[in-house]
Amino acid sequence: MTSIGIIGSEGRMGQALARAIEAAGYTLSGGADKGSDVAALADASNALVDFSAPAALDANLHAAVGAGIPILIGTTGLADAHHAAIDQAAQAIPVLQTGNTSLGVTLLAHLVQEAASRLGPDWDIEILEMHHRMKVDAPSGTALLLGEAAAKGRNVDLAEHSERGRDGHTGARAEGAIGFASLRGGTVAGEHSVILAGEQERITLSHSAEDRMIFAHGAIKGAAWLIGQPAGRYTMPQVLGL
Amino acid sequence: MTSIGIIGSEGRMGQALARAIEAAGYTLSGGADKGSDVAALADASNALVDFSAPAALDANLHAAVGAGIPILIGTTGLADAHHAAIDQAAQAIPVLQTGNTSLGVTLLAHLVQEAASRLGPDWDIEILEMHHRMKVDAPSGTALLLGEAAAKGRNVDLAEHSERGRDGHTGARAEGAIGFASLRGGTVAGEHSVILAGEQERITLSHSAEDRMIFAHGAIKGAAWLIGQPAGRYTMPQVLGL
Amino acid sequence: MTSIGIIGSEGRMGQALARAIEAAGYTLSGGADKGSDVAALADASNALVDFSAPAALDANLHAAVGAGIPILIGTTGLADAHHAAIDQAAQAIPVLQTGNTSLGVTLLAHLVQEAASRLGPDWDIEILEMHHRMKVDAPSGTALLLGEAAAKGRNVDLAEHSERGRDGHTGARAEGAIGFASLRGGTVAGEHSVILAGEQERITLSHSAEDRMIFAHGAIKGAAWLIGQPAGRYTMPQVLGL
Amino acid sequence: MTSIGIIGSEGRMGQALARAIEAAGYTLSGGADKGSDVAALADASNALVDFSAPAALDANLHAAVGAGIPILIGTTGLADAHHAAIDQAAQAIPVLQTGNTSLGVTLLAHLVQEAASRLGPDWDIEILEMHHRMKVDAPSGTALLLGEAAAKGRNVDLAEHSERGRDGHTGARAEGAIGFASLRGGTVAGEHSVILAGEQERITLSHSAEDRMIFAHGAIKGAAWLIGQPAGRYTMPQVLGL
Repeated sequence: MTSIGIIGSEGRMGQALARAIEAAGYTLSGGADKGSDVAALADASNALVDFSAPAALDANLHAAVGAGIPILIGTTGLADAHHAAIDQAAQAIPVLQTGNTSLGVTLLAHLVQEAASRLGPDWDIEILEMHHRMKVDAPSGTALLLGEAAAKGRNVDLAEHSERGRDGHTGARAEGAIGFASLRGGTVAGEHSVILAGEQERITLSHSAEDRMIFAHGAIKGAAWLIGQPAGRYTMPQVLGL
Repeated sequence: MTSIGIIGSEGRMGQALARAIEAAGYTLSGGADKGSDVAALADASNALVDFSAPAALDANLHAAVGAGIPILIGTTGLADAHHAAIDQAAQAIPVLQTGNTSLGVTLLAHLVQEAASRLGPDWDIEILEMHHRMKVDAPSGTALLLGEAAAKGRNVDLAEHSERGRDGHTGARAEGAIGFASLRGGTVAGEHSVILAGEQERITLSHSAEDRMIFAHGAIKGAAWLIGQPAGRYTMPQVLGL
Repeated sequence: MTSIGIIGSEGRMGQALARAIEAAGYTLSGGADKGSDVAALADASNALVDFSAPAALDANLHAAVGAGIPILIGTTGLADAHHAAIDQAAQAIPVLQTGNTSLGVTLLAHLVQEAASRLGPDWDIEILEMHHRMKVDAPSGTALLLGEAAAKGRNVDLAEHSERGRDGHTGARAEGAIGFASLRGGTVAGEHSVILAGEQERITLSHSAEDRMIFAHGAIKGAAWLIGQPAGRYTMPQVLGL
Repeated sequence: MTSIGIIGSEGRMGQALARAIEAAGYTLSGGADKGSDVAALADASNALVDFSAPAALDANLHAAVGAGIPILIGTTGLADAHHAAIDQAAQAIPVLQTGNTSLGVTLLAHLVQEAASRLGPDWDIEILEMHHRMKVDAPSGTALLLGEAAAKGRNVDLAEHSERGRDGHTGARAEGAIGFASLRGGTVAGEHSVILAGEQERITLSHSAEDRMIFAHGAIKGAAWLIGQPAGRYTMPQVLGL
C-alpha cells in the first residue's frame, strides 16, 4: 500500500494534497507542519510531498535521505543554496523539484516547444492568459514557462524577444517576437493559450484549469512515480515520459 | 434600380465597395477620385459612399446636397470642422458617418452595452482583440468602441476606468476596471471578445471577421438603407433597427 | 435581516443553497426535508427556496401562502397540474418557477434573442455545448433554452428548424436551421456557445460555468428579489430587469 | 531559379497555386489542363503539382518520370490502382501524395498524436470542426484525420471508438471514446479543435484556416521540398521534418 506524507499539511495546498492522495487510492501517512517531527513522518511514508517553506527545506531533505524515500518539492522561492542542497540529496534519493505540478501544463509546454521548433519564425507566437481578479502579477508564471518553451523551440533567448504590455502606438510587430497578454477577472482558476499565427492559418494550444486541485493531483502522481526510481534529480516532464 | 457611386474608388476599400455593390444586386454608377467631377457622379447616383480623405469632404457633401441624395461617410481622421459640415448637410439630406461599418460589430456593441448594464459592477469586463502583424496601434479602434459601449452600459466614463498594457506587479484588479489586451500575429483580419467575468461564471461576446470585405458589405447596406430616409444624421445602429 | 428557508436542504443543491445564503449575507432560517414541518419553516422565513420534488410541491405552496411569503421553485419534472397549482398560489404570493437559475444564462438567452431578431435569417445559428462525461442526454436543457431564445428572436418554431446530431452525408445546411452540437468529457461544469455565422463574419455569444454553485447563487438572488414584489408569477429574466 | 508547373491550372485550386508560387518567389513554368502536353510542361519545370483528376494521373506520373522531376499529387478520389502507379513512379522520382496539404493541420495532427499518447485514456478526446454552410458531409476529412492521429496515439482503432452525432438519451460517455461534433454556418473556411478533457483540466489543440489559400501554400512548400530528395514516396509530415 503506497503511503504518502505531506509537509505543510495545514495550508490550502496541504488540504488539497490530502484529498488528492485519497482520490488516487493511496494512504495518507500523516502531515508535518512547523515544529513537527519530519523524520518520524518520513519513516512512516513511501514518499514525501513538500509544499512548506524554503527555511524548512534542509530538514525535509535530511528526513527523506534518512528514511531512504523520495521527495517531491513544490515549495517556491528557492535560492541557489536550496538547489545545491537538493542536488546533494539527489545523490542518495529520487528528488523532483518543480514550480508547476499540473500534468496538463507540463504536456502543453512540451507541445509548444515542438510546434515552435517545427514551424519556423514566420509563424508569430503570442501567449495569452486569464486569471481571477485577485492575482497581483502579470504575466503568470505559467505563461512565462510556456514562453520559455517557445523560445527553446526556436533556439532563442526569451528575454531578448518578449513583447509585453502592448499599448498605444506600438509600430508593427517585431519579427521573432514572443508576445504576452494578460486578462484578469472573476474567479478564473487559470487559462493559458499559445497562438502560432502564420500566413492565413493559426494553431492555438490551450490549457484550462477548472480548479487548483489539479496541482495537487499532479504532485501526488509525481510523488508516486518517484517511488521505484533510482536516486537522482527529476522533472515533471519525466513523470509523463516526455 | 438602386445605383450607388463610390468616392475614393481606386484604393483597396474602393475596390471592395465595388464588389459589395455587385454582390448586393445594385448598380455601380461610377467612381470619383482626386480631380473627378463628384457632382456629375452624384447626379447619376441614388446614394454616395465616401471613403476618400477629409480634405475632400466639403466638396463631397456639396455634391450630395446638390443632387439631393444621401451619403455614407467612412472617412477617418475627421476634425470638428468636418463634423460641423456634416451636421449642416444633414439638414438637407440623410448622412451617416461612422468609423466602423461592420453590421456584426455594430450589433456586438449593442449587446455589450446591454450586458454591462444588466450585470452590475461585480462582473469584471475585459476586452481582447487580435489583429495581423502589421497593425501599428493597440488597442484597436473597434476594441475602444466596444469599451465605450461597456462604459455606457455601466454609466461610467471609459477613460477613468481603462486598464491597459498590464505587465509586472500590477496589484489586484481595480474594482470597476475595463481591461484591454491586444494580440498581434499573422494575417488575422480582426477578432474581438468582450468577457464579463463574475463569481464562477463568465459571459463572452465575440466578433470574428474573416475578411475586410465585411466593412464594404456593411457600408453598402447602410447606403441603401439611407435612401428613402428623411434628412438627418444617422448612425450604424439605426441601420440594424437598434 | 433577510432570512431564507430551504426545502430540500440535504441534497447537493440544498447544501449549495446554504452556502449561497451565507455568501450573500442573508440568514438561513432552516431547512425542510421529507417529514419536516414546512409551515413552521415558512413562518420563520422571509422567503422559501424549493429544490425538492414535484410530490412535495402542493404542501410547499400551501406553507408559503399560509405565511404570506414568496417562494422560488427550482424543482424539475413538473406536470400541468403542478403549474396550475403554482398559478393559483401566485394569486396570493410572489412565485418564481424556473428550470435554470443562473443569472449568466438568463442574460445570455436575452442577448441571443436580440441578436437573432436583428440579424435576419442569412446569419446561420449554431448552438454548441460541452458538459462532463457523466451527462446522459444531449443537447443540454440550457442549449435547448438558448435555441428557444434564438427561435423566438426569429419568430419561428424551434422544433421545425432544429438540426441535431449531424453525421455522414448531410447535404448543405438547410436555410433557417438552428443547429445543435454536444461535446462530452472530463468534469466540465457547463459551457454553451451560440454562433451566428454570416457572410465572412461571425458573432459568438458564450457562457461558461466554473462550478454548479452559480445555480445556487442565482436562486438566492431570485428569492431575495421576490421579497417585496406584489403577488404574481415571475421569471428569471425579470430578476435581471430584462 | 526554381520553376514549378501546375497540372489542373484552370480551376480554383490551380489559380491559388499560381498565386502561391509567386508568393514563394518561385517561377510558374506553366499550366496543363485537359488536352495539354504534360510532357512539355514537365521538361520546362523543376517540379510538378497535380490537382487535376484521377483519370489524368497515369499520364502525369509518366511525364514526371520522363523528365526526372518530382511531383506532388493533391488529387482526391484515388483508387488502389492509382496508389500502385504512384508507388511504381516513386522508384524513379520523389512523389508526395496527400489529401491535406496544410502545414498547420499536418503539425496539429502530430501534436494530437503526441498528446493522446502521453495523457492516457482517462483524458476524454473530443474533436470539433466548423465549416461553411455549403459543406455536404460531416465530420470533415480533416476532423477524421485528427481522429486517426488521436487513435494512433492511444494505440486503438478509430472505427471502434468513434462517437458521432450525439443526440437524445445517449447515456454517459463511453470510456475511451473519441467524439466528433460538426458545426455548419456562414463562410467559415475551416476550424478544427481537439479537446482532451481530464479531471478538472483541459487541453485544446486547434487549427483555424482563414482562407483556402493555405492548401496552395503548403502544396508549393511541399513541391519545393521534394526537389533534391532521392526517389521515394513521401508524406506531408516529412516536409515539416516530423
